[in-house]
Amino acid sequence: MIYLKKLIVFLLFIGFSILHASKHPNLILTKKGVNAIQKHLGTIPIFDQTLARVKQEVDKDIATGIHVPIPKDMAGGYTHDRHKKNWFTLQKAGVLYQILDEEKYAIYVKQVLMSYAKMYKNLPLHPKERSYARGKIFWQCLNDANWLVYVSQAYDCIYDYLSKSERVYLEEELFIPYAEFLSEQNPKFFNRIHNHSTWGNVAVGMIGLVMNNEKFIRYALEGLDATTFDKNAMDNDGGLIYDKDRKAGFLSNLDQPFSPDGYYTEGPYYQRYAMYPFMVFAEALENTRPDLKIFNYKEGVLIKGVDALLQLTNEKGEFFPLNDGQKGMSYLANELVAAVDIAYHFGKQDATLLSIAKKQNTVLLDNTGLSVALALQQNKQQVFKKKSIQFRDGSKGDEGAVSILRAQKKPFTVVMKNTAQGLSHGHYDKLSFSYYHKGEEVLQDYGLSRFVNVKQKNGGGYLKENKTFAKQSIAHNTVVLDETSHFKGKYKIGSQHHSEVFAFKTQDPNLQLASAIELNAYPDTKLHRSLILLEDQDFEQPLLIDVFNIDSKNTHKIDLPFYYHDQIIGTNFKYQTPKVLTPLGEKNGYQHLWLEGQTPSLEMDKTLQVTWRSNNQFYTISSALSKGDELLFTRIGANDPKFNLRRDPAFILRKKDVKNEVFINILETHGGYNAVTESATNAFSSIKNIELIKEVSEGYIAFKIITTKDKVHLFALCLERNATNKKHYIEVEGITHHWKGEIFHYVN
Amino acid sequence: MIYLKKLIVFLLFIGFSILHASKHPNLILTKKGVNAIQKHLGTIPIFDQTLARVKQEVDKDIATGIHVPIPKDMAGGYTHDRHKKNWFTLQKAGVLYQILDEEKYAIYVKQVLMSYAKMYKNLPLHPKERSYARGKIFWQCLNDANWLVYVSQAYDCIYDYLSKSERVYLEEELFIPYAEFLSEQNPKFFNRIHNHSTWGNVAVGMIGLVMNNEKFIRYALEGLDATTFDKNAMDNDGGLIYDKDRKAGFLSNLDQPFSPDGYYTEGPYYQRYAMYPFMVFAEALENTRPDLKIFNYKEGVLIKGVDALLQLTNEKGEFFPLNDGQKGMSYLANELVAAVDIAYHFGKQDATLLSIAKKQNTVLLDNTGLSVALALQQNKQQVFKKKSIQFRDGSKGDEGAVSILRAQKKPFTVVMKNTAQGLSHGHYDKLSFSYYHKGEEVLQDYGLSRFVNVKQKNGGGYLKENKTFAKQSIAHNTVVLDETSHFKGKYKIGSQHHSEVFAFKTQDPNLQLASAIELNAYPDTKLHRSLILLEDQDFEQPLLIDVFNIDSKNTHKIDLPFYYHDQIIGTNFKYQTPKVLTPLGEKNGYQHLWLEGQTPSLEMDKTLQVTWRSNNQFYTISSALSKGDELLFTRIGANDPKFNLRRDPAFILRKKDVKNEVFINILETHGGYNAVTESATNAFSSIKNIELIKEVSEGYIAFKIITTKDKVHLFALCLERNATNKKHYIEVEGITHHWKGEIFHYVN
Repeated sequence: MIYLKKLIVFLLFIGFSILHASKHPNLILTKKGVNAIQKHLGTIPIFDQTLARVKQEVDKDIATGIHVPIPKDMAGGYTHDRHKKNWFTLQKAGVLYQILDEEKYAIYVKQVLMSYAKMYKNLPLHPKERSYARGKIFWQCLNDANWLVYVSQAYDCIYDYLSKSERVYLEEELFIPYAEFLSEQNPKFFNRIHNHSTWGNVAVGMIGLVMNNEKFIRYALEGLDATTFDKNAMDNDGGLIYDKDRKAGFLSNLDQPFSPDGYYTEGPYYQRYAMYPFMVFAEALENTRPDLKIFNYKEGVLIKGVDALLQLTNEKGEFFPLNDGQKGMSYLANELVAAVDIAYHFGKQDATLLSIAKKQNTVLLDNTGLSVALALQQNKQQVFKKKSIQFRDGSKGDEGAVSILRAQKKPFTVVMKNTAQGLSHGHYDKLSFSYYHKGEEVLQDYGLSRFVNVKQKNGGGYLKENKTFAKQSIAHNTVVLDETSHFKGKYKIGSQHHSEVFAFKTQDPNLQLASAIELNAYPDTKLHRSLILLEDQDFEQPLLIDVFNIDSKNTHKIDLPFYYHDQIIGTNFKYQTPKVLTPLGEKNGYQHLWLEGQTPSLEMDKTLQVTWRSNNQFYTISSALSKGDELLFTRIGANDPKFNLRRDPAFILRKKDVKNEVFINILETHGGYNAVTESATNAFSSIKNIELIKEVSEGYIAFKIITTKDKVHLFALCLERNATNKKHYIEVEGITHHWKGEIFHYVN
Repeated sequence: MIYLKKLIVFLLFIGFSILHASKHPNLILTKKGVNAIQKHLGTIPIFDQTLARVKQEVDKDIATGIHVPIPKDMAGGYTHDRHKKNWFTLQKAGVLYQILDEEKYAIYVKQVLMSYAKMYKNLPLHPKERSYARGKIFWQCLNDANWLVYVSQAYDCIYDYLSKSERVYLEEELFIPYAEFLSEQNPKFFNRIHNHSTWGNVAVGMIGLVMNNEKFIRYALEGLDATTFDKNAMDNDGGLIYDKDRKAGFLSNLDQPFSPDGYYTEGPYYQRYAMYPFMVFAEALENTRPDLKIFNYKEGVLIKGVDALLQLTNEKGEFFPLNDGQKGMSYLANELVAAVDIAYHFGKQDATLLSIAKKQNTVLLDNTGLSVALALQQNKQQVFKKKSIQFRDGSKGDEGAVSILRAQKKPFTVVMKNTAQGLSHGHYDKLSFSYYHKGEEVLQDYGLSRFVNVKQKNGGGYLKENKTFAKQSIAHNTVVLDETSHFKGKYKIGSQHHSEVFAFKTQDPNLQLASAIELNAYPDTKLHRSLILLEDQDFEQPLLIDVFNIDSKNTHKIDLPFYYHDQIIGTNFKYQTPKVLTPLGEKNGYQHLWLEGQTPSLEMDKTLQVTWRSNNQFYTISSALSKGDELLFTRIGANDPKFNLRRDPAFILRKKDVKNEVFINILETHGGYNAVTESATNAFSSIKNIELIKEVSEGYIAFKIITTKDKVHLFALCLERNATNKKHYIEVEGITHHWKGEIFHYVN
């Protein structure tokens, strides 16, 4: 990898001497590309529509004049929003100048850039002091970098329109000091493995490419020489600023957070955010130095990353909110428009990407967008098929995985998180999962606690509750020991470990399995969770079977929450509800849960059932609990003085004073409700009982599901490593069953 | 009215002697109608599709055999659901026999009827003892009546197919005792002014028409002779069984609960439910005795009722959940398919009804459905335009009204409830309102507390919380004095009174007004609420201005809640949140509210603002409060041991120890949030301050809204009767303003 990286850097500088004299634009738009676009204008509907929309937008903004205010506000405030609008308008105006050849756009870009140039050198740091790396135009360097990534493109588009002296003026007064500020003057922003740094690297790299500035291009690709910096410094997200091997720059940000499968360790929400600079800089490199083959880097990880992102969405195209992720973000985002178009054009013209582009209904106004528009015009699109798939985490792919099970014929998706920590945006949610039906959440991942760009909510930044609740283990559908989060909720510990995939079997669409192990979340404790997606004629819809083994040297209290939605319809057990609501605990997220109800400790082993209704659909979780266990009903919202948290419900299964235990939970989807016909169909569970079989050989677990029609489903799992090709035997009630592989299912 | 009723009854019996020998079917289908249908088959898409769907459904059911089990279960249980399915299948099979002329359907109907006939006479009362009027086939007479309304039609369809002796057998063993059971043996069910009785009347009337049985027809139209019954007996809904004037029967159920505007006093949810028997019996009467002109009865109230129902829906076609109403019920319901088709055919072929029929995408398989299908095939439909409209309540139209304001150009709807009690399904919610934006609730009416047909929830029946919460005043967006519901929450008191319309002005689409007075909800207290829907360029979206005057002889604590949705974004004031949640009060619904936060008593007059986000839209209520007032944040859910209530939030404005007070609240809709672009636009209120002008002449109220851009909007209202045509003067800050009419608006 390091060799490859060095080769690329070497090739790059060779290349530059050749390209030195080449004409602009050459970054995202190219002379040749512009000619091709102009040739097809009027005949490529989706491109023409996008162009018309962009022209209308830009004309409207230009008509309001030039606005380059002295920076003052946070996100959501006027100067922030105006400078943000400028970067978009400038980039688009540059494109319009090239494609439409109308001088007014070049004039506009030039005038705005001149205004920035007049102001820039005298600007102090932005007056708001909230960021670990304050910008000049914006409150944080990150936004200054965003600006430059876009504005570099605008500059490239009017480069040849400007006189040499105009260019010298802009570069000396604006672009060079700007790029130096983002890099040399802000190493703690620039030299990380983090999406922030990717933006910084690309900003400096893009303007470096336009100006043909060797220093900036080197900074962008390799980072700064960091030998002089404090290696223990942390950023405001709690992330380490320096990687222990001092890797930095664009290539390291490709090497490290991306797994060979294209999964970005921060999770899909931030992968989406980083994808724009990754893809657009790759495009710029490909246009200026095609011999570098940047899209082949790390076996084509950039293109794989686009595919991974698209797979990491629900049926509505919304990203699974793993780690810090705001719900609702989807592949309709601009970053994904860029990613899809660039991946289509520079990848293998994958026709399934076109179906996504069609849904996006907009394209990049460049060569890649033209390719997509032409292909769509020729009706080349094929369905992008989402499937059961696993994305390994870690730069080498050996740090766990996100495991996705999708039912074959019905719209159900299990997303299981068996990854590494996910850098500073990671949650303490080892082996957690969420469950979707028709694109709607059945069991949710809370996501982040933040209202991005909503000024009233902490200026749009992360809320305190992100740390005190959303990141904590109890906020997720996974086990918590002794009311303490995984790794004690400490990033320094969590970031040293990762879960391990035990099995991922999807060959049999009726019996899919995702199974993973976590050894480090708690000392001397092995967590092993197996999720089985079963499609069987005895059940109306696929069953999700959750087998969670906890094996510890010491005794613990163990909680396992399920965050459902909407309203409880019925239970098969009695519980008490308090007259007064008190928080469930003191810390680690427990202080944010109201205790709404509780069973007494069970007097004997019992299968408890909770049925709820959500989106006019019935769901039941049947839980095989043991004597002494409890079930608690909770609701988020305690100690939340600013109403920052959603009042979402959960129920928690609790075991006390236990060492080695197993939770068996079965989630059934059944029936439905129609408010117009007022008919409730199949409102009851089809499961009568779950029976754990206690007398089995070590290393095995076996249990029976007895249906209300007295059908018996026997399941057995081998919990030992390398179970795949071994033959297994198990004796149940005098009968010996044998099978090969991890899982056994037998219907009686 | 009484004269007209007598005339109709007289005409009817004249008519019968003439029609006696006429052929069947003549009830809903007619010989002539069937011929017309057969002629058009295959050329009328919506009819043909409906027919194909029905045929498939019926064939599927017939294939499973005949099922007439001994009655045993509650709603949701097997015998209930099966007998319910039978009534639908029988009715449809009868229709298929007529239209398709396939004997298998007649055979099926005959066999099923014979099975019922064999069983019926020996049936005891249904074993479940939950109803005030237990049925035989079902747990309540109401469902027995439903059955007969449908099955009468099936009998009519195969009447001529049967031999005379078969008919005699069926009538003597089944239909005659069935009708006698519903009428003579259940006067407390049959002889009310209530949707239950309407079903009973129509059931007995329909079978009476088929059998040409004079007694039953008379019962149906005029009710039983009730002189011997206990007049104080109440039904299980808390309704009086006898009307004080002992009116009963179909015509009285048209006279009394329907206002001259077609509003049904129980509210749209039950109007929808009653509409099927009303319309289908009217159709039957029209077919058998067209000279009665039943559709002209009470100036065409049946057709008006259909129009009223359609107006009483949000943009998704869902009925406003006034009184007991289950949310989600819409004009797609079967009852509305029947109502729309029958109203189109027997009314004035109103082309706007066709657009509703098109959305319903199904028609009745009779002459009326044929008319609609033919008209749709000819593309005659016109838009059904929802508008600002008022529906008077009370049989004479003098018992208040439902007042609906709709913004002219933007999708906002105000529904203000200024009606009478609404019989036993009424809520104690005088002058309450709800507010819709794009068909979504902004300020909600809770609706009922019931999960219709969901067995786990009290067998699908009303829940205890319907009475303890949903009906109570504090569950609504209206004032509550001293934590006591209107009329002390007593039906006997509430049903003697009604609110009064003060003004309803919609001529100026930019300044619409609905204003009403309630004098009896509390002793010696006048409540006067005025809702103003303002469209003005100073505000992005229409403003809803709520002016609530309370004028009492004694001092009170006054609460005014607003039930918003989703999440608080920000406030312009400080408040405390408790560490432990306690119920807000002891009774009258207060026991179901958790107190989530509270301001201290205000130290001076102040405009408090609460901004929330719902459906990616920002809303702000600005409240002009006075020194000593408080604001409380609450959430439904206390004392709810079975999770029967939704955990919905509200905030409550509270005044203490006051006699004469006014609440001025302004609801702004502004900006929006896009989770994909992560842009928050216009997230702040445009209102800086609301200023009540204290020095005004008696009988007037005036206030100013000062915008954040320092524009001043002055409003004045005359609160005296007969304000419309009077000239009014008001002096504000030395300037005299004058106007004519109820309301004055002046922008400075």
